[in-house]
Formats: sequence, C-alpha cells, structure tokens
Amino acid sequence: MASPNRIPEIRKDTVNNRWVIFSPARSRRPSDFKSKSNLINPTSQPECPFCIGHEHECAPEIFRVPASGPDWRIRVIQNLYPALSRDLESSGELAGRPGGGSVALSGFGFHDVVIESPVHAVHLPDLDPVKIGDVFMAYKKRIEQLQCHDSIQYVQIFKNHGASAGASMSHSHSQMIALPVVPPTVSTRLDSMKEYFGQTGKCSLCEIRFDALLIDESIHFISISPFAATFPFEIWIIPRYHSSHFHELDGVKAIDLGRLLKLTLRKMNVQLNSPPFNFMIQSPPLQVSPTQLPYTHWFLQIVPQLSVVGGFEMGTGCYINPVFPEDAAKLLREVSISS
Amino acid sequence: MASPNRIPEIRKDTVNNRWVIFSPARSRRPSDFKSKSNLINPTSQPECPFCIGHEHECAPEIFRVPASGPDWRIRVIQNLYPALSRDLESSGELAGRPGGGSVALSGFGFHDVVIESPVHAVHLPDLDPVKIGDVFMAYKKRIEQLQCHDSIQYVQIFKNHGASAGASMSHSHSQMIALPVVPPTVSTRLDSMKEYFGQTGKCSLCEIRFDALLIDESIHFISISPFAATFPFEIWIIPRYHSSHFHELDGVKAIDLGRLLKLTLRKMNVQLNSPPFNFMIQSPPLQVSPTQLPYTHWFLQIVPQLSVVGGFEMGTGCYINPVFPEDAAKLLREVSISS
Repeated sequence: MASPNRIPEIRKDTVNNRWVIFSPARSRRPSDFKSKSNLINPTSQPECPFCIGHEHECAPEIFRVPASGPDWRIRVIQNLYPALSRDLESSGELAGRPGGGSVALSGFGFHDVVIESPVHAVHLPDLDPVKIGDVFMAYKKRIEQLQCHDSIQYVQIFKNHGASAGASMSHSHSQMIALPVVPPTVSTRLDSMKEYFGQTGKCSLCEIRFDALLIDESIHFISISPFAATFPFEIWIIPRYHSSHFHELDGVKAIDLGRLLKLTLRKMNVQLNSPPFNFMIQSPPLQVSPTQLPYTHWFLQIVPQLSVVGGFEMGTGCYINPVFPEDAAKLLREVSISS
Repeated sequence: MASPNRIPEIRKDTVNNRWVIFSPARSRRPSDFKSKSNLINPTSQPECPFCIGHEHECAPEIFRVPASGPDWRIRVIQNLYPALSRDLESSGELAGRPGGGSVALSGFGFHDVVIESPVHAVHLPDLDPVKIGDVFMAYKKRIEQLQCHDSIQYVQIFKNHGASAGASMSHSHSQMIALPVVPPTVSTRLDSMKEYFGQTGKCSLCEIRFDALLIDESIHFISISPFAATFPFEIWIIPRYHSSHFHELDGVKAIDLGRLLKLTLRKMNVQLNSPPFNFMIQSPPLQVSPTQLPYTHWFLQIVPQLSVVGGFEMGTGCYINPVFPEDAAKLLREVSISS
C-alpha cells in the first residue's frame, strides 16, 4: 500500500468538472476503512408497509412485476411523502414572487418508490442476477412512462441504504424522482463531456478505462474507482459499449449489470463492513439532441457512507478524499467472494 | 404557520445558480424542527491540545492575539492533519497521469486552524461581540498573509461545530483552507452574479432584502433566510453595504458582525435545540478583476445540521428542503433572547 508515503494531490474530475483533494495525511490506512454501523437488516418487521400482504398500507401502485397476481417480485408505487406533486399543473413560473432575480416554479413532478423484493430481510445483493436485472428493467419501464410527460426533463434514480444514507425504511427499495428542470450536476456533466468531445472527438466515459483503477469487469460493464473519486471507495459501473441513456438497457444486459452490481455490493460489504450507501444512476436529460448523443454515456455511481461532509465541502463544492482511488480499487479487486 | 396548506415549489437560488425543492409534505411542522443531538460542551477536557497551557501539543503557531505573551485570546495555528501541504512546490500539473482527460496537480496549499478561545467550555456565541470581532479580524489578517502567495487563488473560511457537522475537536475553533484552484461553487456563484449584473446593472446581494425573509438587522448587516435556501433554517448574514471581499472588513464592522452572529447563533440554539452546525464565509476568489468588483459581495452562510443528504441530492445537486424560508425566518425573528 503506497499511501503512507504519498503526498497530497488535487485531481480534476473531468466528467463532473470538479476538483477533489486527495489527502492521505487525513486517513487511516485505506485497508482500515470500515463503516462503524454494520447494517444488519431485521429478518422481519411486522409493521413494514413494503412487505408482501401490506400493499393496502402504501400509496397507490403504478405497476408490479409480474404485471398481475398477488405474488409480486417488484412493486413500483407512489411515494407516500412525495417531494413533488403529480397533481399540479406542469410548472410555469409562479407569479407574485419577490424581485431581485428570484424565480419559483410550481412543484410539479413525480416521486416513486421501487420495492425491490416482497420479503423484508432480502436486500438487493441477496437477489440473483436475473432478479436484480428485473429491478433495472422496472426502472426502464417507469422512465418510459414518465418521458410521455412533455414537461419532465430528467429522472433521477437513486437508492438510499441505511438511515445515515437517507433511508427512512429498512425494506430494500429505491426511488425515482422526475423533475421539470435539468439539475445542476446533470447540466454540468453534459457541458464537461461536451468539452472533452470537442477536444478529442471521443466520449470521455468510453475512454475512461485505466488498469490501476479497474475493480471488475463483466461482458458489458466495468466497475472502477474513478480517477478523481469524490468520496472514499466511490465506485462507478460503466457500460463498456457506448450508451447515452440508462433506459436503452435491454434484458440481457440488465442481467449482466445485475451480476456485476451484486458482486460489487458484496465486495463493498466485506471490505467496508456493510456500510450505509447510496447509488445513483447518472444519465443525461431525457431530451438531448442527436448531436449530444455521441458524448453522453450513463453510469451507475455507488457511494458508501464513510465520511462526514463539513463546512469546507459545503462552501466550496470541493471534497477531501483521504483514499487514493488506485488503493481503493486494489482492495476491492482483491476481496475474495465465495459464490 | 402557512406550511401545512402549502404546495411544493421549486425555487431557483440565483446567487448559486441551483434549484431547490420546497416540499412541506416531507416536513414536521417547522416549529417542531429541533436537533436530536443537543451539544453540551464539557466544561473541561484535560487532554485538549487547543486549551491554554497545551500549546506545545499543537502544530506550529502562525500568530496569536494579542501578538505576544502567554495570555492569548485567539491562536492561529497549522492544522496537524492538513488537507494540503504548504511544503510542496506551488502546483503545476503532475506528469505521468493516465490519459482520458485526467488532470492532477500537486497538493500545495495551506490548512490552518483558528482557536477562538483559550477556554474549553467557551463557545463562539458565549464571547462578547468585541471578542467575536477579534476572531473575524484574525481571519482577515491570515487572508492578507495568504494572498502574498501568487498561486493561492481562494481561501475558504469555515467552522464545523459538532461531530456530525465534521468537527473532530470540541474546543471552539474554525478553519481556513487556501487553495491553488478556484472551487466550483465559487466560480458558479461568480458567473451567476455576473449574469444578474449584466441584466440589471445591480449587485444581486445588494438587492436581496425582502421583508418576509428578514430575521434581524444591525447597523452594517442583515440576517435572512435566503429565498431558495438549500437547507432547512439556513441563514445568511450579508453586509448591507456593497463589499466584494470579506477581508475588506474593518474593526468597527467586525464588532457589529460579532453582535449579529452572536444573536443569530443564540437564536438558532434556542429554536433548534443547539444543533451541530457549519458556517462558511463565502467570498470571491482573491484575484478578481476591477470589472468584477461591482457584482461580487461576500456573506456568511450558517447551516444547522438537521437533515441527512441522500442519493437524490448527491446525484442531482438539487436539495429537498422541507421548510419554507419565510416560515424559518418568522420563527427565528420571533425567538426571544434575554441579553
């Protein structure tokens, strides 16, 4: 492990256009990075509305997999406490706001929940790759429904696992928020990937593969520690083939992705003591122009919750990462998983 | 309190150019917002290196206030675990990095600590306004030293109070990180304020005052809940006069700022149960051109730690705030503080 002798480095994340400070002086040894809060899921929780048999306690269902019958494997439902409202008029600018450049839109949008398993004790990496693939295909189906709304510009798919990662329910689930605006992270990434394409004629994510950062690979995907990872042990799973939007995924590739995600989450649980984590599917806005397709490329970003964000990060948008990505990649590459 | 009947709204923070979702459905009543972790500071901690008499246990001192003698009120010292190294050559691009657009600089920079009081049990709002003013003047003096280094482009001043806000020491202190790059938040804010100036010929922060968002005012400053606050109960203290950089502050205004910060933190502690918090001094890059001065305007941003950041916020850079700023402002305006 080279870290103890390393000097700090400031790396640019050219995909997201931000600087990250790598600061080994602030680290324990990378191999000592473990979550303090090993998340053991209770085997049953009688009052969980996401468990099979409790469907009537939830907000309305959008669809289930399979499409009918009581023995569902996946349910896509409305969020009981939605961040945005599907019942508002699609968002025009609200009148009567104070001056000084302030802008407000009505909070139109969709906020859905994807229940990934009918059984409380079963978490995503416990499912077999085919069933994880079904979850991805449910995301895809829901995106295809949401993009029928003209004013929806972006859909963020994300998973919060563990209370400190923002989860309020322990039953395995992910969420989808459909927005009438393009979020700042997404437009910044689009601009940054465009700039790289303008300079090189290539997609920056097709070019990103670098041996020391590689964790694993499958037929259609690679998992890597990104060169300028914002967070310690952050992982990106990237299609090896050029693909602009996540919802281009087909059933065969969904299973392959399920296999690699399962492996990755199991490795993370072994190496980092089953930490709380988030994953985000990073895809461009729904309506990109044909000229943007050559440089937009979706990926799945996994962030274990191992550090606290403080005033420096809030103030600057720069993060301090105590673990060099090549060290994180090596540790995750070498974790042995019994299959 | 109007919140229970409110519908969600998406507001644009035109200073920082980001969207914030206001979602009352996800809230308790705003008046019920209290931190679970009331931070009571131990009256003494025999092993604290920041306490008077333990100076030899710290990294080297940069200066103290008063300038000499054992009875210091403030010490500015090097951070024992600096994020960046002052001993490196100022940062050129590092060679030997992988391709694909990756950029790395050597980690040159400064990371200092400002010990705000010699006494362990005394926190910033316990000090009188003159002594808080001294802390601001210590920041200013250190910035003036740091800007002598040609390659330093930005200094972030910040305070982490409480472990969940990123503090590793309970003794009252703040930190200063001097960077050889302009961070993304800072350049985005500069662009956004430039755009407003281009459209109106006015500084957006000189124009920001809005009665329903006002919390308090002093001779030279106002405290407000910003119209598109990213976080619940976020507060900005803004100079009423146009001032580009924080380090233009003089001794008289520093005391006035000290009085308003003390009042604001005491109100926050009463209303929100002494929450962990961060504050950040948001100032433009050190070297701005004369044409940029009319639209750059520093402010002090205070963020109590009341919510958890999840995958949606990480993925999009959009935040969901359950408390409308006008409700937060009303509650904070009406808190009664015995003087």
